[in-house]
Amino acid sequence: MQKFKVTFLPDNLTVEAEKDKTILSAAISAGININSNCGGDGICGRCKVIVNEGQVSSQPNGIITPQERKNNVYLACLTTVHSDLKVLIPDSSRINFDKLTPEELEERLSGLYSKAEDIQPVKEKFEDKVFTHSPFATKIYLELPEPTLNDSISDLERLYRALRQYGEFPAIATGLFNIRQLGELLRDYDWKVTVTLGRRNETVEIVLIEPGDTTANNYGLCFDIGTTTISGQLVDLNSKKILGTKATYNQQAAFGSDVITRIVYAAKTDGLEKLHNAVTDTMNQIIKDLVSEHRIDLNSVNCVVCSGNTTMIHLLLSMDPSHIRRQPYVPTANFIPVLRAAEAGININPRGLLNCVPGVSSYVGGDTTAGVLSSRLYQKEEACILIDIGTNGEIVLGNKDFLVACAASAGPAFEGSGVSSGMRASSGAIQKVNIDKKDFSVKYSTIQDAAPRGICGSGYIDLLSEMLDAGIIDKAGKIKVEGKRIRQGENGKEFVVCFKEEANSESDILINEADIENLKRSKGAIYSATAILVRHLALDFSSVSKIFIAGGFGTYLDIEKAIRIGLLPDLERSKFVFIGNSSLAGSRQILLSAQARDMADALAQKITYFELSVDPGYMDEYSQSLFFPHTDLTRFPTVRA
Amino acid sequence: MQKFKVTFLPDNLTVEAEKDKTILSAAISAGININSNCGGDGICGRCKVIVNEGQVSSQPNGIITPQERKNNVYLACLTTVHSDLKVLIPDSSRINFDKLTPEELEERLSGLYSKAEDIQPVKEKFEDKVFTHSPFATKIYLELPEPTLNDSISDLERLYRALRQYGEFPAIATGLFNIRQLGELLRDYDWKVTVTLGRRNETVEIVLIEPGDTTANNYGLCFDIGTTTISGQLVDLNSKKILGTKATYNQQAAFGSDVITRIVYAAKTDGLEKLHNAVTDTMNQIIKDLVSEHRIDLNSVNCVVCSGNTTMIHLLLSMDPSHIRRQPYVPTANFIPVLRAAEAGININPRGLLNCVPGVSSYVGGDTTAGVLSSRLYQKEEACILIDIGTNGEIVLGNKDFLVACAASAGPAFEGSGVSSGMRASSGAIQKVNIDKKDFSVKYSTIQDAAPRGICGSGYIDLLSEMLDAGIIDKAGKIKVEGKRIRQGENGKEFVVCFKEEANSESDILINEADIENLKRSKGAIYSATAILVRHLALDFSSVSKIFIAGGFGTYLDIEKAIRIGLLPDLERSKFVFIGNSSLAGSRQILLSAQARDMADALAQKITYFELSVDPGYMDEYSQSLFFPHTDLTRFPTVRA
Repeated sequence: MQKFKVTFLPDNLTVEAEKDKTILSAAISAGININSNCGGDGICGRCKVIVNEGQVSSQPNGIITPQERKNNVYLACLTTVHSDLKVLIPDSSRINFDKLTPEELEERLSGLYSKAEDIQPVKEKFEDKVFTHSPFATKIYLELPEPTLNDSISDLERLYRALRQYGEFPAIATGLFNIRQLGELLRDYDWKVTVTLGRRNETVEIVLIEPGDTTANNYGLCFDIGTTTISGQLVDLNSKKILGTKATYNQQAAFGSDVITRIVYAAKTDGLEKLHNAVTDTMNQIIKDLVSEHRIDLNSVNCVVCSGNTTMIHLLLSMDPSHIRRQPYVPTANFIPVLRAAEAGININPRGLLNCVPGVSSYVGGDTTAGVLSSRLYQKEEACILIDIGTNGEIVLGNKDFLVACAASAGPAFEGSGVSSGMRASSGAIQKVNIDKKDFSVKYSTIQDAAPRGICGSGYIDLLSEMLDAGIIDKAGKIKVEGKRIRQGENGKEFVVCFKEEANSESDILINEADIENLKRSKGAIYSATAILVRHLALDFSSVSKIFIAGGFGTYLDIEKAIRIGLLPDLERSKFVFIGNSSLAGSRQILLSAQARDMADALAQKITYFELSVDPGYMDEYSQSLFFPHTDLTRFPTVRA
Repeated sequence: MQKFKVTFLPDNLTVEAEKDKTILSAAISAGININSNCGGDGICGRCKVIVNEGQVSSQPNGIITPQERKNNVYLACLTTVHSDLKVLIPDSSRINFDKLTPEELEERLSGLYSKAEDIQPVKEKFEDKVFTHSPFATKIYLELPEPTLNDSISDLERLYRALRQYGEFPAIATGLFNIRQLGELLRDYDWKVTVTLGRRNETVEIVLIEPGDTTANNYGLCFDIGTTTISGQLVDLNSKKILGTKATYNQQAAFGSDVITRIVYAAKTDGLEKLHNAVTDTMNQIIKDLVSEHRIDLNSVNCVVCSGNTTMIHLLLSMDPSHIRRQPYVPTANFIPVLRAAEAGININPRGLLNCVPGVSSYVGGDTTAGVLSSRLYQKEEACILIDIGTNGEIVLGNKDFLVACAASAGPAFEGSGVSSGMRASSGAIQKVNIDKKDFSVKYSTIQDAAPRGICGSGYIDLLSEMLDAGIIDKAGKIKVEGKRIRQGENGKEFVVCFKEEANSESDILINEADIENLKRSKGAIYSATAILVRHLALDFSSVSKIFIAGGFGTYLDIEKAIRIGLLPDLERSKFVFIGNSSLAGSRQILLSAQARDMADALAQKITYFELSVDPGYMDEYSQSLFFPHTDLTRFPTVRA
């Protein structure tokens, strides 16, 4: 096919165009936003251009006047390229974005053409670009040409025609709700509307049609639905900025502290409904707080991405989770189609969409997929480990070639649940502890330096490490000394971190032997699972290049002390990278990028699930890790030293 | 608000009505189907009632005679309630929905609709197969392998994996409803299920998952939703057999006899809702009758295809039709996405799908698209014409290269509405008439040889033709002779076809000059539209190779007499082909074949709408056709001879 050079002025942009292609299509490929309200049908007359040099062929039309013809004015949509051309595009034929700065324009278009700057999942840690910006829901403002007797296509087709100017959509779908309102809406608002497009599996859905230009208000939410803690973020889908983050305890905790007890509860009468309501109530409270804090209309929140373990997603969607805990451990679904958020009881725009990040298996869920996505484990040359410490801990070992995951039932102790003075990492939580080796006096710091209210996960790690170093507890976690802070309680001996008089609280903040047992099992589950997984792949820890630590308490984690108690393997400290809530970060990426969503789908397919309990060495490994740091001290050389 | 009791006789039904409400609205709320062709505007005079007791207030009108006023006859639409009332509704003011026996229907339908076993629209005329069999909804029986520890993919992916063995689906979608039930269903029924797949735009949707093998039971429905008559067919999607056909009156007729009065009614308070309910009530009654007659579970009916004019489809989907009648005549949508039938209020399987055949413009709807499809106009080498004679007549001229359509507002006269003794083509309708040229005595035959109740469309054509031949009326339709059957009436002179003594009825069956005027306008609208369309394309009738006549009265139409009165052009009789309800035939093809659906989409895009009123010669042509057969007799050489 013969090709010609078409130069557009005054931009001085040159593109190649095949013979017989329209000037309009050449302009589009040059990235010039040319007016074409009628979609290139030669009706609207908005795409007039002046051909300064070269040969063209043009269809007759009733729009170009004889005077204009003399001056080489043509309709770009009806005029085809027959030689190299120089074409002047007057300002009047350009789509008027003049109210937008170039930066704003860039952002506006990025959703449509996928060519904006990239999203960085964890700002400080990864420098290079990850995914392009193409959010789950995009808004496009359209000024439709009014229908005439010569252009009397239906309202819906008029809308579609205008949308198609913004790109090739695989298929556009619209619900009856929107269609029913369309006629009045277009006429009442002078044919100026904003269309919210959502990606729904293989089609693009018109989620919403609003009067006027509402493109400035396009928000989304991402959630990490943890067994114990639910975290949500409100994101401006235009600027990609995180407007706010909230975390709170999952109200489901009232029905059991781990996924197994929840699954059992779900089988009771109304159990599934209660668990479903508990998780949506928690989420809706977070949403309500976030939107009211930022004075955002709930109707401007058009989409939600949720990651969570497989049981959490089942409960969110009122899907029976019972088979997750029965051999051969099969969930109802790992890949959930895009749904309306309202179908799951999530209160955003009633037509807004919900994407659940796909999971791998019954015990490795979408939160792990999201974590692998945001940690970029799947791009690494060398083997790396991702440890997500939560009530259900997940460990992934892999690189660009392979990804293997296992699950460790750690329990909620490190999230401050199920331990006597435990609390979530929030204001007033003791997060750092120092114990004087002589008189066992305690110094501590709290989050936001507020009056102490309890102990969070990182506080417990500090506390255990200090108690070990001070000789208050032995390797097995038993309290072996006496002192004014040590006393006999209902659950064995206890050590008072902070008397109620100091804290000005109702009761002492303390740790007892039952708590220590609990914490020991948690850290043992995580460590042994990690060790088994490494051995299963015939590797050893020394060949692992990075260990990414994720989880709600990651920010406050003292790596030295986590190794001291045997939660983490005793490796070079530089190998550890804290990445915070990697599940939330991954779901945010999916919220902001269709490519990230596709990658998540691919990862969920690629990650192999390894069932720990089938490994013959598992019970031994677990038993050995029920000591601080471990029965086998050769594994912890720096601790021994 | 003051409320009164209105009792309708002889039904003895009592309803409460607010003061100042019309008797018509009270009758509607009592469920009485009262005639109201003009939509309650006090014009048609069909809703006469007798107020036996109580006080009313009535607007003056030119319809109630002084004699009637003495006898307490009122128009129900213009008369409001001012006290408790007893109101007699005579038979002549009722829409008789229940008068057709199954046998009457069957007889009427046997000729009207092609009874072909396959999907060939007109068996004798087209030899070759049309579309391959790929129904709108397909069932596949699956025996899934039970999950094991080594094959523990989720239930949903297991289902998808099995489905993919049956072919490459573009994308499979499933609703949350099905996913929620999946786990239990698979395990309770030994991993043996039947999946119903429906085509939904660009994806294949899992409509339903049922236990065991239910593939033998897969049914669909097709409908022609006419302004006056609604016809539905139950089809076995496996065998492609038509199991049954039902036709009944569109209950919307109570709100006006043509699309314009319906559109006006829709703009009233609750008007759209009432019209929507009327059409779905009619359809649901047809569905109920069909499934109970054939002992089919409603849950086995998985899909519906509907064709209808653009206004009918808007009302079916509760879409505001108001802009259809306002310049530039733009409907809300011509192409409707596949919906759930339940969204439109159609009672089949609650998750079953609905496809509305795409339309061309505000006045050329999906019924025309379906007609072009089933008549195969789009495959013809030579130019052919499709004339669909209904309340809104549509004419399509074209062949394999071009298709141009126009709409002629023929009015309901040929459907027996808006004329003094008019009735629909059912038992007791006079369908054939012979008039003795000397004494003007009348011989007639009625449908099913029942006692005469009125005159149907084909009867009027016979009657006019005979009156012309006998010299009773002149070219202009004026009664020019005297005789015992001829007398002066309120609406000009009238000719009595059947005295009430003969018919044993309440009143004479007659035709008056106003009726003749009405019929003349109807036939003139159809003929002139056809002539203009032919001329618009620079053709003449002699170059047209076939004229397909479609519509509800096609079976009874005497072609010779239709030419005599100037309804059809005077061409070689062998060029005329009756194809019955081509809209229903087309929607059945789409029900049975994805290719037919794609073709319908392409046709709706391809057919060009020609707006008659913009043709400068239109008014002249129409005026000239307001004679029997025409002012220009050279156009009707056989009539002149």
